[in-house]
Amino acid sequence: MSRLLLNCDIGESFGAWTMGLDAEVMPFIDCANVACGFHASDPQIMRRTVALARKHDVRIGAHPAYPDLVGFGRRSMACSPAEVENMLLYQIGALDGICRAEGTQVRYVKPHGALYNDMMRQPELLRAVMSAIKAYSANLPLMLMSTRDNSASQALAEEMGITLWFEVFADRAYDAAGMLVSRSLPGAVHHDAETVTDQALRLAKGEALIASDDSALILQADTLCVHGDNAGSIAAVQRIRHALQALPA
Amino acid sequence: MSRLLLNCDIGESFGAWTMGLDAEVMPFIDCANVACGFHASDPQIMRRTVALARKHDVRIGAHPAYPDLVGFGRRSMACSPAEVENMLLYQIGALDGICRAEGTQVRYVKPHGALYNDMMRQPELLRAVMSAIKAYSANLPLMLMSTRDNSASQALAEEMGITLWFEVFADRAYDAAGMLVSRSLPGAVHHDAETVTDQALRLAKGEALIASDDSALILQADTLCVHGDNAGSIAAVQRIRHALQALPA
Amino acid sequence: MSRLLLNCDIGESFGAWTMGLDAEVMPFIDCANVACGFHASDPQIMRRTVALARKHDVRIGAHPAYPDLVGFGRRSMACSPAEVENMLLYQIGALDGICRAEGTQVRYVKPHGALYNDMMRQPELLRAVMSAIKAYSANLPLMLMSTRDNSASQALAEEMGITLWFEVFADRAYDAAGMLVSRSLPGAVHHDAETVTDQALRLAKGEALIASDDSALILQADTLCVHGDNAGSIAAVQRIRHALQALPA
Amino acid sequence: MSRLLLNCDIGESFGAWTMGLDAEVMPFIDCANVACGFHASDPQIMRRTVALARKHDVRIGAHPAYPDLVGFGRRSMACSPAEVENMLLYQIGALDGICRAEGTQVRYVKPHGALYNDMMRQPELLRAVMSAIKAYSANLPLMLMSTRDNSASQALAEEMGITLWFEVFADRAYDAAGMLVSRSLPGAVHHDAETVTDQALRLAKGEALIASDDSALILQADTLCVHGDNAGSIAAVQRIRHALQALPA
Repeated sequence: MSRLLLNCDIGESFGAWTMGLDAEVMPFIDCANVACGFHASDPQIMRRTVALARKHDVRIGAHPAYPDLVGFGRRSMACSPAEVENMLLYQIGALDGICRAEGTQVRYVKPHGALYNDMMRQPELLRAVMSAIKAYSANLPLMLMSTRDNSASQALAEEMGITLWFEVFADRAYDAAGMLVSRSLPGAVHHDAETVTDQALRLAKGEALIASDDSALILQADTLCVHGDNAGSIAAVQRIRHALQALPA
Repeated sequence: MSRLLLNCDIGESFGAWTMGLDAEVMPFIDCANVACGFHASDPQIMRRTVALARKHDVRIGAHPAYPDLVGFGRRSMACSPAEVENMLLYQIGALDGICRAEGTQVRYVKPHGALYNDMMRQPELLRAVMSAIKAYSANLPLMLMSTRDNSASQALAEEMGITLWFEVFADRAYDAAGMLVSRSLPGAVHHDAETVTDQALRLAKGEALIASDDSALILQADTLCVHGDNAGSIAAVQRIRHALQALPA
Repeated sequence: MSRLLLNCDIGESFGAWTMGLDAEVMPFIDCANVACGFHASDPQIMRRTVALARKHDVRIGAHPAYPDLVGFGRRSMACSPAEVENMLLYQIGALDGICRAEGTQVRYVKPHGALYNDMMRQPELLRAVMSAIKAYSANLPLMLMSTRDNSASQALAEEMGITLWFEVFADRAYDAAGMLVSRSLPGAVHHDAETVTDQALRLAKGEALIASDDSALILQADTLCVHGDNAGSIAAVQRIRHALQALPA
Repeated sequence: MSRLLLNCDIGESFGAWTMGLDAEVMPFIDCANVACGFHASDPQIMRRTVALARKHDVRIGAHPAYPDLVGFGRRSMACSPAEVENMLLYQIGALDGICRAEGTQVRYVKPHGALYNDMMRQPELLRAVMSAIKAYSANLPLMLMSTRDNSASQALAEEMGITLWFEVFADRAYDAAGMLVSRSLPGAVHHDAETVTDQALRLAKGEALIASDDSALILQADTLCVHGDNAGSIAAVQRIRHALQALPA
């Protein structure tokens, strides 16, 4: 990839409940992480979401999760690697089934919430995720978190024959290891628009950030996570989009 | 198809709960209607079930249902055609995702329980089912119930570009319209082994059955529904299998 | 009861999804129909909802439903009377368990959505609902729809030893039988504020409405259904509340 | 309590799926830990289970769990103390609602599976469990695991005003801390009938067991966990029952 793709969680409504400003954010993103029914969404909403993404020519990614609707997939569950592998195959396939009816297909995979976090910490879960993706289609990249040292996940991906897309954040502070500073700590989240846009630009240009221990931190950055929750976050996405477009190709 | 395929509901365990003698019945059937997680099964069980079917070279069919685990998909739900279409795409895709990990794929679709019954009675639901199948893959036949007059469903299938496999029953009495006699009526279910095998043979040979009003009933018969619930039903499948094999090719 | 109680569906958020302006409508109602987890809500939201109702001294009612979160309990399901009876006991008990932690208790029962509609049409389901209530506590009134002729439900309630609270609507047109005119027909819903308030006052005073066939319709009116969905519906509740308060005691 | 009560997980069927020989084991136990719908069971099965327990005059306990049907409540979930407290209130109340229809009530609480284990390890979850029980009814004892040193849980129970029933196991080896030896280690489970009965008798008489480090281990024993999974476990329950009955009162 030659540029920083903007990815956003999309299609997280459920039944009669609405969440997110999908129609508003879709025009400004490259990649839609589409919920697959385990933490959010249902077949009706998935169909509508896929149609919306297709209309805006946005890549559709599967956004699989632990089976925990009431907890929105945010609660870690002690699932075995085999359980994780099979729940991914199920969810990717389900979304791909919906995609067929809209003449499109799943183009990448980004695990959601607690599953994303657990995969970053437990190598046997990361392997299970990759194993599912490889079995589904060797052409589907996995989005995962970029840290200071991505060598372990890169080595595993090479072994498995999987492409990785490293994800970075413009609105979060990083620690020395290139992990996100916990939201419980001061300064974890950047609320200032200029800071956010500046961090996005640095990441896109391959420039160093300043980690929380004041060390310089260079992160491999294939895709930037943005949000479509509310008017404020959509304004932020637009600012980032415009700033990135002004960069030399 | 040149012969009567035996189809059986398979993979209807759920989590820690076991149902059916899948391993025992699999060697004797042609088509496994594999539960997709809405009325039974889960990703782990689907994976195991697909592997078992593949081992015995049994065709895998998606067996989608209303979202009603506690009711085992047997309770009619007032779902709209769009809801039915999308829940089918979701479930077919999910099973196909699992199939990919076992090097195989979904080969046909047979709706389950109340959805099957509702589809036979409500043309707009039958159209929704066909619409999902067509969108998923025009090569997937739909299994549905054979009745005295299949012309309406055949006309719809031609319009939609879908192949139909008409299903018949060896252990059930038929009424004048070629519908199953209600289980609440006497004589609805054949308990005698010889009667069941004889009905299977008549159906395979295209011979007439005697309907409950004593009229002759000829049913188009592409596939015969058998059961793997218990030792008795497996013995019945074996008897039917052997009787069919003795027929001239 | 000496006056028309205002009842409102409350606590219909679920997990991370918010629905309804509960805090805004609560000060203006008498009875909160609290979702019990089958069509909406979860234990966390139920706790918060019960605390809010208690703070405003609003009677708490159980609002049980078919088990259909994705369909919001709006889809009829072919449940048996025994299933309905037991799902009511379960949901009433669950809400009452939450109530105990807030020093209060369930005071009445109003079935939700499709279950409410089905109960009005199928006497065996109405009997199942009453049977559950009677078993739970003979002191819990059942809210059900008032129609021109309530004698059948009243006779059943007397047989079962249950109190009925008849519910009326200010924003809907009635037909000759005292049933709501279908939303698919013109004039089914009153959008004009004055019309709504006027109908509420007529119902409170025991005056006749004009049914869709121009006949006079007098409805027994114990409680009026109001809504807290959005700012408009809350304004309507406030208007009705003020109009009712101006009535002579 | 003057004697060792036998408790058994009961009512763990779900929908169309059967688990456990409830009718066979019920005559031999004192306390039935009845599943409440979150890891197993549903309102129909709960009703049938409560009726069975009542018929045999067996105390009914609530057996609440994490919301994880597909995982049978055996997978730890990162739930907050408030979530645990409210899911307990919900489940205890739901079972108590079913009990009312059978003229009985919940008499104690024993958390299930991963929730039981997590509560033993995380004091804030144990406090949440006690808080729910206290709010529901100060008269409900909590069953929890007896270890070498129960002082921490006893102190917390006194602070909260809760009664504890300490549970012991006859078919499991204990380590030096009075915790169960992990099933992954050799000798963790006693398969020999005589060993199991002997351990039950020692526990009932307050005699020391030999822990896995050869130290003597005396456990407070109010109730013994038995199983109704299969014919073998029911034979074991019968042997234990008879051995205990032969003890001097």
